[in-house]
Amino acid sequence: MSQKHTTPHSGLPDDSRRRFLNKVAFTGLAGAGISFGLAACKDDTAASAVAATTAHADTSGAHGGDYSVAPGQLDTYYMFSSAGHAGDVRVFGLPSGREFKRIPVFNIDCMIGWGITNESKAIIGTNPDGSLKYHTGDTHHLHPSYTDGTYDGRYLFVNDKLNCRLARVRLDTMECDKITQLPNIQGFHGTFPDKRDPVDPAINRSTRVFCGAEFSIPLPNVGVGIEDEAKYRSLFSCVDVESMEVRWQVLIDGNCELVASSYDGKLAATTQYNTEMGAKYEDMMSAEWDSCLFFNIARIEQAVRDGKFKTYGDSKVPVVDGTQAANADPKTALTCYVPVPKNPHGVNISPDGKYYACAGKLSPSASLIAHEKVLQWFDGNLKEPREAVVAEPEIGLGPLHTAFDGRGNAYTTLFLDSQIVKWSIDGAIKSYQGDKSVTVVVDRLDVHYQPGHGFTSMGETRDCDGKFLVSDNKFSKDRFLPVGPLHPETSQLIDISGEKMKLVHDNPVSSEPHDSIIIRRDIIKPKQIYELDQFPNAVRGPQESGVFRDGNKVTVKLVSQAPAFSLREFKLRKGDEVTIVLTNLDKIEDLTHGFAIERYNINFIVNPQETKSVTFKADKAGVFWCYCTHFCHALHMEMRSRMIVEA
Amino acid sequence: MSQKHTTPHSGLPDDSRRRFLNKVAFTGLAGAGISFGLAACKDDTAASAVAATTAHADTSGAHGGDYSVAPGQLDTYYMFSSAGHAGDVRVFGLPSGREFKRIPVFNIDCMIGWGITNESKAIIGTNPDGSLKYHTGDTHHLHPSYTDGTYDGRYLFVNDKLNCRLARVRLDTMECDKITQLPNIQGFHGTFPDKRDPVDPAINRSTRVFCGAEFSIPLPNVGVGIEDEAKYRSLFSCVDVESMEVRWQVLIDGNCELVASSYDGKLAATTQYNTEMGAKYEDMMSAEWDSCLFFNIARIEQAVRDGKFKTYGDSKVPVVDGTQAANADPKTALTCYVPVPKNPHGVNISPDGKYYACAGKLSPSASLIAHEKVLQWFDGNLKEPREAVVAEPEIGLGPLHTAFDGRGNAYTTLFLDSQIVKWSIDGAIKSYQGDKSVTVVVDRLDVHYQPGHGFTSMGETRDCDGKFLVSDNKFSKDRFLPVGPLHPETSQLIDISGEKMKLVHDNPVSSEPHDSIIIRRDIIKPKQIYELDQFPNAVRGPQESGVFRDGNKVTVKLVSQAPAFSLREFKLRKGDEVTIVLTNLDKIEDLTHGFAIERYNINFIVNPQETKSVTFKADKAGVFWCYCTHFCHALHMEMRSRMIVEA
Repeated sequence: MSQKHTTPHSGLPDDSRRRFLNKVAFTGLAGAGISFGLAACKDDTAASAVAATTAHADTSGAHGGDYSVAPGQLDTYYMFSSAGHAGDVRVFGLPSGREFKRIPVFNIDCMIGWGITNESKAIIGTNPDGSLKYHTGDTHHLHPSYTDGTYDGRYLFVNDKLNCRLARVRLDTMECDKITQLPNIQGFHGTFPDKRDPVDPAINRSTRVFCGAEFSIPLPNVGVGIEDEAKYRSLFSCVDVESMEVRWQVLIDGNCELVASSYDGKLAATTQYNTEMGAKYEDMMSAEWDSCLFFNIARIEQAVRDGKFKTYGDSKVPVVDGTQAANADPKTALTCYVPVPKNPHGVNISPDGKYYACAGKLSPSASLIAHEKVLQWFDGNLKEPREAVVAEPEIGLGPLHTAFDGRGNAYTTLFLDSQIVKWSIDGAIKSYQGDKSVTVVVDRLDVHYQPGHGFTSMGETRDCDGKFLVSDNKFSKDRFLPVGPLHPETSQLIDISGEKMKLVHDNPVSSEPHDSIIIRRDIIKPKQIYELDQFPNAVRGPQESGVFRDGNKVTVKLVSQAPAFSLREFKLRKGDEVTIVLTNLDKIEDLTHGFAIERYNINFIVNPQETKSVTFKADKAGVFWCYCTHFCHALHMEMRSRMIVEA
Repeated sequence: MSQKHTTPHSGLPDDSRRRFLNKVAFTGLAGAGISFGLAACKDDTAASAVAATTAHADTSGAHGGDYSVAPGQLDTYYMFSSAGHAGDVRVFGLPSGREFKRIPVFNIDCMIGWGITNESKAIIGTNPDGSLKYHTGDTHHLHPSYTDGTYDGRYLFVNDKLNCRLARVRLDTMECDKITQLPNIQGFHGTFPDKRDPVDPAINRSTRVFCGAEFSIPLPNVGVGIEDEAKYRSLFSCVDVESMEVRWQVLIDGNCELVASSYDGKLAATTQYNTEMGAKYEDMMSAEWDSCLFFNIARIEQAVRDGKFKTYGDSKVPVVDGTQAANADPKTALTCYVPVPKNPHGVNISPDGKYYACAGKLSPSASLIAHEKVLQWFDGNLKEPREAVVAEPEIGLGPLHTAFDGRGNAYTTLFLDSQIVKWSIDGAIKSYQGDKSVTVVVDRLDVHYQPGHGFTSMGETRDCDGKFLVSDNKFSKDRFLPVGPLHPETSQLIDISGEKMKLVHDNPVSSEPHDSIIIRRDIIKPKQIYELDQFPNAVRGPQESGVFRDGNKVTVKLVSQAPAFSLREFKLRKGDEVTIVLTNLDKIEDLTHGFAIERYNINFIVNPQETKSVTFKADKAGVFWCYCTHFCHALHMEMRSRMIVEA
């Protein structure tokens, strides 16, 4: 499919630096044992700027900023981060950088009981024997729901690249409430909700989540046709925000990398680093050009309504055809493939909704694609998709992701240069149009080291405020006290309110935040105490507690009220299938209890007014103390019950 | 057993405040739905000082301290924290408060592959079917190994209260390398290594770890004799530092709470809150007096050598008799029960080795016990154990743990008063002797809220430097941006270098650090890169990689070298039992790779020069992409292999 992309296009910047990249990128494969990624740190030619300069490292507040958060004072922003292969979502405060919470999603959290309680198992999904179907995950991208082009504090969506799932986190409780597995794909990577409906102007909020599949596979993937790599395919998926059902999928050429959505609801976009559809490393980077691929949402949904889809294997999800061959006529096309320099990674839309910035990864450039021009192409009013590119500034080595300040500047992370480069959008457009007098790159700041995502406060909304940028860097090397062979990564807070970027502080982050978003604190309205009625199985008072037997199935109901459980003991018989239901009757904020059973590998917590349950087999006879694991009271240590299992 | 403890003893402070505590402690049980623990915050009588005063909250460095750690600068201290029912160990830097690492121990960590790799499963322990025996844990106390009375940077030991295990963490790699389950006990709580041998002066380092069991159970605990609570017993255990085998156990009256060890190696101590040996809440707090129990290590080990022990059930561990009835003669006694006011919690030895401070929990006092006097009792030269108490200052409500500054001051956390109280050891002794002119309490600082452990920099060693104290508080309530019903706890850094304590900053900590230690950074010598030879199953180069079949058992050997795995694909048959062995040949510090298999619920990382393996059943046919999960290189996304499972 990508033949035409291998031909350099007018407007392409000088590719001498890119040729350099090709050369050194292969060095890593030569078996020299030296990684290119880090070798760059020691390569004067490629990355002289990577030295650990502290030129900007003064924290005295040159811009008048006071970044300290004194004891008892609250942070100004929330930062939510995906946690990579740790499988959770993290919640930080800015500007302090303090971590407030880890929200378990795809992992097991034995403190909370996530993956242990019946309620969490039902969300995660189980095998027929009741064991968890998965307890690993790889979260890369997380984005909250929108209303009117800004965050509405309802939901956060996060991907699992490892087992192909999309999870939803409620922002009031900051707990995961739904997980959906996507069929027909592998390597689910880019994730972004829409911002409004493409057709109905009354629907000015997120109702869809777009999901890109990075890895191509045989369809269906059942162990036949596995040799012919040319037939492997990737799909782009759409999940319903409320039901979390998969609405539809699109068969495409190439693969999906990052995902963006337009402010008018009309388009979704994904970068494609493997338009070659190669299965091997060097194939994936052989073409000089790849694509930023756009999806016309209204047309796709009309095609589904018109029955123009197929399904694969056991999946009932409608799959429409978004390949180039099937979409030659722009006026009916579901997809538009815009050529950009090789192996692009990030795609980010500017807060005014006008431009998508694709960063080139193996090209030292960013490509700016005009939203209106892509719409023109779909209307048949633009000759070539490539004409939608309105700027392609050369900004540095290894550009990945671009953030915005709402004042006309873009900030792109440079993985190889270990820098943030600040560039003018207008300047880049004018320069692309031939104006040699404009300054495109207006500032550079060293970061430590090798940044992945960079993102600004409210920067992916119409409320972009241009105050802070965080650079989530992939290597910390010598920035923190050493803690063994596994290093943390570095999250650096940068003040972007002035002309020059200013490094505020370094925070270590456990592997491995990929993407984060920064939200003004007033948008989030957390719920501090549950309501008893939210839980159909709530035990409403000590009078309802007791041991209820039905053959060898036993339900033990109890309540917690500091510093005691309502049952001081409960008797079982060896071999019983036991379900414990525990309601925390305490109503005071922050008064959480835990419930652990000695040697029975069971622990979970109940927050104020919450109910949870666990089911297990009483397979060991004896006395087993149950105790409160979550400090609650001066007599917390004495807060116990006894499980007596008769032989 | 505790008859004599119910009689007030000379030297007992006025108990009017304690009677108040008895009254309100029961209020929580009355079903009013109001927790005493937190109700105290709103009770003018009990805890007027709990208001969120910020009197000391200025961070400008009144003591000339500069607490900021600028970008690129290193912290001065490591802080290691137990993580409660999260089951891991955390590593922080001070004074910044930044978290560098979480070391998985009793939990599953799907980022590292802890609980997933064969190597980690062998450490954690498995069922006959290969599944993990436990994947929960409740870590409370962690203490490093000693040489010459100070930390030697070798090991860290941490308990699991939930499944009764002791884990050892290597301080060079900061990874857990051994886990031992303790027999015959439940509620393994207090944990402390010894500091030298009680007999052999040449052994000036830790060779034993002492472990206290909090919950009493029938012995053996097999489902018979479960009704007679009076026969339930607790044991005190000793584990060998090197072999991690259980050396011996001691049968005791009452239970074990916190544990301390003497600098001369002669004694171990544990507090006892349930000398009543009650199974119910109100029984556990009925006696006015409980104990601090001392163990004579040399005598216990001689008794074991002399064959004066029994064993229980399947366990081969020798158990000596440390009950009061069996140890009436001090000159041969293995144990000494020193009466202290009711329900003591913490016990901490002063850095000069002279005093144990027990804090009273339900008494507003701390008891100071002289080490020499306990030795005198064992020599028959002290009439009553209670005479070993040399001070018992009234310091405030809910005292739990005491730390030291090496300048003669003690710092006790007051759970109910939400304060740190600084008191003079000499002053307290003189006051106890009747000198009314001395000032015992020299400073108080509000903390937020309800502190558990408090600990000072190097404070549990002879190198105690009196610079910082950290208060790990159980409730954060309003100190941070709200994150839903589950709140973080608060870890507050306090400068204790001056006369007045000074609050430096608040750090949120995810539930729930119980105990921590602060170590000077020069003591820790982390290893940044493994050696290939450490791993018997290392794959030494691409030439050794391949697929090795033996019937349906298949071993897949491969190496990683950024940005590629040595096998681009490997073929299996559905139903194969597959073991993947992966060696990371990259030698550059911080260059970690991950290995995940799509939809197969497998992920783990390999640090530089490390080898790991996983075993699983190839139960799904098709093409499954394996990919690097730990960012390594500009072409990290392209770093993949293909697992082809033929139907």
